Amino acid sequence: MANANINRQILLVSRPQGEASADNFRLVETPLAPLGEGQVRVRNHFLSLDPYMRGRMNDTKSYAPPQPLNEVMIGGTVGEVIESRNAAFKAGDKVVGMFGWQEYGTSDGKGMQIVDTTHVPLSAYLGPVGMPGVTAWYGLNRIIEPKAGETVVVSAASGAVGSVVGQLAKAAGCRAVGIAGGEEKCRYVVETLGFDACVDYKAGNLRDDLKSATPNGVDGYFENVGGEVLDAVLARMNAFGRIALCGMISGYDGKPLPMKAPALLLTQRLKLQGFIVSEHMDVWPQALKELGIAVATGKLKYRETIAEGIESAPEAFLGLLRGKNFGKQLVKLI
Amino acid sequence: MANANINRQILLVSRPQGEASADNFRLVETPLAPLGEGQVRVRNHFLSLDPYMRGRMNDTKSYAPPQPLNEVMIGGTVGEVIESRNAAFKAGDKVVGMFGWQEYGTSDGKGMQIVDTTHVPLSAYLGPVGMPGVTAWYGLNRIIEPKAGETVVVSAASGAVGSVVGQLAKAAGCRAVGIAGGEEKCRYVVETLGFDACVDYKAGNLRDDLKSATPNGVDGYFENVGGEVLDAVLARMNAFGRIALCGMISGYDGKPLPMKAPALLLTQRLKLQGFIVSEHMDVWPQALKELGIAVATGKLKYRETIAEGIESAPEAFLGLLRGKNFGKQLVKLI
Repeated sequence: MANANINRQILLVSRPQGEASADNFRLVETPLAPLGEGQVRVRNHFLSLDPYMRGRMNDTKSYAPPQPLNEVMIGGTVGEVIESRNAAFKAGDKVVGMFGWQEYGTSDGKGMQIVDTTHVPLSAYLGPVGMPGVTAWYGLNRIIEPKAGETVVVSAASGAVGSVVGQLAKAAGCRAVGIAGGEEKCRYVVETLGFDACVDYKAGNLRDDLKSATPNGVDGYFENVGGEVLDAVLARMNAFGRIALCGMISGYDGKPLPMKAPALLLTQRLKLQGFIVSEHMDVWPQALKELGIAVATGKLKYRETIAEGIESAPEAFLGLLRGKNFGKQLVKLI
Repeated sequence: MANANINRQILLVSRPQGEASADNFRLVETPLAPLGEGQVRVRNHFLSLDPYMRGRMNDTKSYAPPQPLNEVMIGGTVGEVIESRNAAFKAGDKVVGMFGWQEYGTSDGKGMQIVDTTHVPLSAYLGPVGMPGVTAWYGLNRIIEPKAGETVVVSAASGAVGSVVGQLAKAAGCRAVGIAGGEEKCRYVVETLGFDACVDYKAGNLRDDLKSATPNGVDGYFENVGGEVLDAVLARMNAFGRIALCGMISGYDGKPLPMKAPALLLTQRLKLQGFIVSEHMDVWPQALKELGIAVATGKLKYRETIAEGIESAPEAFLGLLRGKNFGKQLVKLI
């Protein structure tokens, strides 16, 4: 259990050669220093685990600098202010921040937002009403720009981002089709989330099953996976289709991941756009408002997989990379 | 030589298995029928040969229906009205049309435009002031949207489209870098067309040479080639780069042409868009006006490779697919 004077933290201590492993991480215990003037201390309740973290473990050119070695792993958190020497925050405030893989966060308040948990549970600010939700909102509304009657497909459909994409597409009057791994996830995507169909890519008939699920072809595709799944959906794209490229988790361990038939981008006059939601801060207020209302009123459904204790974070993260989670992967820290 | 009563035509008589060959075409002689009421007869002066024609030879799903077998091959032409029973045209009018691979065209006037050859040579209406020019204009201005100071790269840079892309990019204040096959073409691209640099992809050091030619990376890429050239430029793209996908001539013979590292589209947040200029007729008037002025005033330079006689069209076309032409490939028909 947590000791009030000790902050348990997880550091990145080595970079993966190929697959990430638990050896890349180390748990350390660090005494908490007294707060300085202007500082705030937060007891983190939940840590968010997200696929983008795998990219940060590498020391390669990407959209963000690599996670430094021997420092606390980056990550979004929600928690409660337990001590404040900053006029903008008081003990008891519930906050969202980027405190990383640790039990306590200490900050001058920058990048922290107070959130209202009256109608939206605290953990949802790491999911549908947080970065994953805004990611779904941006890719769908600003890149795919769905029109009623169109078919929108999303991979990793039961996940934190994918589940929101499909529900928003459905609300926009589209046929929403998910791709997920396993019967149980697919059943959830259709029966609970309300997608029109879901294709189990583990069933071994991805191309045929996708064809059956998209009788009118595909107009918009929200990509979280890459590789064979992207190849299969590309072959179903209609003329003037749009692809929002959000993630390629199947290649995050460094396997070469070619696109088999890029000529389809030309022959079908497709638009494909890669994006990172943190570069589009202008949409966050509108997106969070819409997503918050949808969650508070029960219209937007979501599911969480919760690992217990900071020490469970590495294994939970490795499981996320292999699709073992079901919905948003969190670590409960208190 | 042409006989005034006989129309020499080239038909597509079979579809290529792999590479296209001269056997796929046949020259036939067809007597000219008397004009009907409302009809116009044009003596074609030049036939345009373009890479898109290779796609039409296949019987596969693409943006346009396949060229029917045993009919005159599709193609853009310029010529002179020699007889008219249509009030909109008179003998002596210079016209642009889509009469295909034949010496004479007969039409009800639909799709024919009268052009002014006072300051712009007739053949230029098949090049910089025609479909290739508008293709360059659209991809550059509507997809790449270049800003002064950026670097724009174009493949097949000495060709009918590429040569215009680079000159327009240069006029927009960009660093213009071409990719072409062979020293002579590269010299022309830099010395005559005024690009800042040109990389000879046949020299065997494409990636290194491209790196040297683009010290600040690549912000906009106009793609005519695909395959290894696309892979090499992708690796040089800056964040938020734009790729206008116009052609993939290296794959037109049916070779599989994967994209090696599509993850770059995500990590660099690129936009890639395929387009076909005939689907954007709204831009043609503005584009043709600008291009016509640029050619008439000598600001926009271009080069032609001219084959003589309709019988030379198949070999000239096969040469175009292998990059044997230098600038716009035409067939002179009179």
